[in-house]
Amino acid sequence: MTDRQIKQFEFLIEIDKMKSVFRRSQNIDGKRAENDAEHSWHLCMLAVTLKEYFIDQTVDLDKTIKLLLMHDLVEVYAGDTFCYDQKGNESKAERENNAADKLFALLPKDQGELFKSYWKEFEDFKTTESKFANAVDRIQPFILNVNTDGHTWKQTAVTVDMIYERMNPVKLYLPSLWEYVESNVNHYKSLGRFAEK
Amino acid sequence: MTDRQIKQFEFLIEIDKMKSVFRRSQNIDGKRAENDAEHSWHLCMLAVTLKEYFIDQTVDLDKTIKLLLMHDLVEVYAGDTFCYDQKGNESKAERENNAADKLFALLPKDQGELFKSYWKEFEDFKTTESKFANAVDRIQPFILNVNTDGHTWKQTAVTVDMIYERMNPVKLYLPSLWEYVESNVNHYKSLGRFAEK
Repeated sequence: MTDRQIKQFEFLIEIDKMKSVFRRSQNIDGKRAENDAEHSWHLCMLAVTLKEYFIDQTVDLDKTIKLLLMHDLVEVYAGDTFCYDQKGNESKAERENNAADKLFALLPKDQGELFKSYWKEFEDFKTTESKFANAVDRIQPFILNVNTDGHTWKQTAVTVDMIYERMNPVKLYLPSLWEYVESNVNHYKSLGRFAEK
Repeated sequence: MTDRQIKQFEFLIEIDKMKSVFRRSQNIDGKRAENDAEHSWHLCMLAVTLKEYFIDQTVDLDKTIKLLLMHDLVEVYAGDTFCYDQKGNESKAERENNAADKLFALLPKDQGELFKSYWKEFEDFKTTESKFANAVDRIQPFILNVNTDGHTWKQTAVTVDMIYERMNPVKLYLPSLWEYVESNVNHYKSLGRFAEK
């Protein structure tokens, strides 16, 4: 094998660790937490299926899929940071930047830079594709929550305001799916599932 | 929500079952079998990373990724069929066709037909993208095997000929990666790990 191939294989072996980085969301069968690899796949499926609801139909779906395939890769070193974990989120950027430097350096330089740019584009949340990808990354755990009796919300003192803030990209970028979010928040609110302010 | 959105959400919820369809391959940490969702994600990452070795550089990577995202979806109903299970493979096509009819019917008609065409294109193994996708689907479990001390090969009476037949798409379509296959087969052969004919 060439040096280039050896590097590419090392990277592909290292990212296998995504299969044991666990998130807070439960899979819909309710048996265990979702991991980053299956989460990334599910997001891609959401993007392909729900693209028609994104506010800008010139969005590049294929680019969006690449952002989604790679957006959580740095977690093989940095771990998953729960979105409502305030302390964890204070150190998240630094931990993930260091992880990105380490992970993408496994690849040949050109490819490492390209893949890192996908990760960065998702994080920066500026391009059309990043907005679509991030909106999908917000609504997917919401769908899992709705289908596991609000699993994550039961475990944490989440307020309605915190959820609406987290879901704002859905409101902005997938507005016709907002009714789904709002009606489910109201349902769980009526069950007294959320924390008070 | 519109009827269309309800159908799309039902589909996206149903395919969450991919996260508990387990394959024969072990993940590289050796702790458990890989599931279809994480397998599909890993294949997409291989396709993006190794495209340069495919024999036809006009291949549409984005189309290939869609085939890979969807190629195992029917297994939410049909289950995973181990590639070396002769009896299981006799009924595989019928079981998977029935599963495809059932699964893709959850979606709005236009989208169901489109997604089913991706699954079918992968299965038919005729287009350039299908050849690339299938070659990737052959080398990925091989990489997992090599990195889990030949896990699958230990459990089954697999001969060298069976492996070479299974890996033939790698030889044909990713020829510069063939040395990796051959040298690892020789290594495990020298350890007496394969069945005799």
